[in-house]
Amino acid sequence: MSNEYPITSRNKVKRVPQRGSYDKDTLYEVLDAGFICHAGFVVEGQPFVIPTIYGREENRLYFHGASTSRMLVNLKQGIPVCITVTHLDGLVLARSAFHHSMNYRSAMVFGTATEVSDEEKEHALFVVSEHIMKGRWDEVRGPNSKELKATSVLALEIDQASSKIRTGPPKDEAEDYQLDIWAGVVPLKLVTEPPINDDELKSDLSPSENVLSYSI
Amino acid sequence: MSNEYPITSRNKVKRVPQRGSYDKDTLYEVLDAGFICHAGFVVEGQPFVIPTIYGREENRLYFHGASTSRMLVNLKQGIPVCITVTHLDGLVLARSAFHHSMNYRSAMVFGTATEVSDEEKEHALFVVSEHIMKGRWDEVRGPNSKELKATSVLALEIDQASSKIRTGPPKDEAEDYQLDIWAGVVPLKLVTEPPINDDELKSDLSPSENVLSYSI
Repeated sequence: MSNEYPITSRNKVKRVPQRGSYDKDTLYEVLDAGFICHAGFVVEGQPFVIPTIYGREENRLYFHGASTSRMLVNLKQGIPVCITVTHLDGLVLARSAFHHSMNYRSAMVFGTATEVSDEEKEHALFVVSEHIMKGRWDEVRGPNSKELKATSVLALEIDQASSKIRTGPPKDEAEDYQLDIWAGVVPLKLVTEPPINDDELKSDLSPSENVLSYSI
Repeated sequence: MSNEYPITSRNKVKRVPQRGSYDKDTLYEVLDAGFICHAGFVVEGQPFVIPTIYGREENRLYFHGASTSRMLVNLKQGIPVCITVTHLDGLVLARSAFHHSMNYRSAMVFGTATEVSDEEKEHALFVVSEHIMKGRWDEVRGPNSKELKATSVLALEIDQASSKIRTGPPKDEAEDYQLDIWAGVVPLKLVTEPPINDDELKSDLSPSENVLSYSI
């Protein structure tokens, strides 16, 4: 099987195409590094963009939510969806206003979602949970049948996709390199801070090794 | 003028409505804290979700990009757009898998965009630049007429909008508080790291006070 998604008018990276990639491993890396995606779908001509958590298994994304949520109710009709994940890596400060930019990694995925069967549901929730914090699933009370019933899980087979990545310093106009203007990058990073105990925590409990050693 | 957006079927916060707000100041705070939004629009029935930077002035958002970009070419036709900004503030780790959640602040904006006039363009770019890093515009070479021509700028008057915010500890089922499972929050934060000089920087230059003291 090819390790690249086919290039179509839908997923083609048009602006600055040299930053684009159709490679699956690159896409998976960007997807796996994110907590939330922004899911876009259309209801009666109106686009909606909803932030939501997800998990990936092979070439499939899983989403979950309340069975009654607008997003899930609509998406499970099999309407077209666009899933975008973006990581900000830095402010790119050029010598000219025009060449200011951001360093980022983004993934854009196209496909249609289907509701997973009751048999697949718990596994899919496990995949989403592991995506957010590996190992947490095994530390907590698993879902009971009432909770499983209240939750819808959708699977989206990645049909078309592209990633776009910008790294490195600004690119200025040749003549601007002589200007007395500082240029460079201010890196951005999402970090964790030490865990905060729930106010209602039983007094003899402390965070597990898994939680304490957690990093993004 | 009311300080709230009207509630309609489009912007109504349906899931966990007590986390929703229609207050303008709350919305502006969430918008102003972000670097990028995810802009959703529809082309021939297909939704696209594109990460892009923006700036806010009063009740208006500005977007810019290459005059040839798919997003700008489409948006300036005046099609419906949904703009979403999301900040992740923490992983909410409950005692049950079901009650795991995220702390976040999100804003969802609906409207249609129009292209700004040549007279408004430079001011709009200034607003976007100040949004990303206040004071930077005055330190750099401003746009020349060729650069202004290559750039399209759109304005979107915020028509309908809502914010949604989750803060605080997990909410578990009453009986689960007795379980020997640690629960709490792992805070997440986007931070800057020290500026990195451009490799081609003139040797006598160092970052301005404005860049050095920059924080999110």
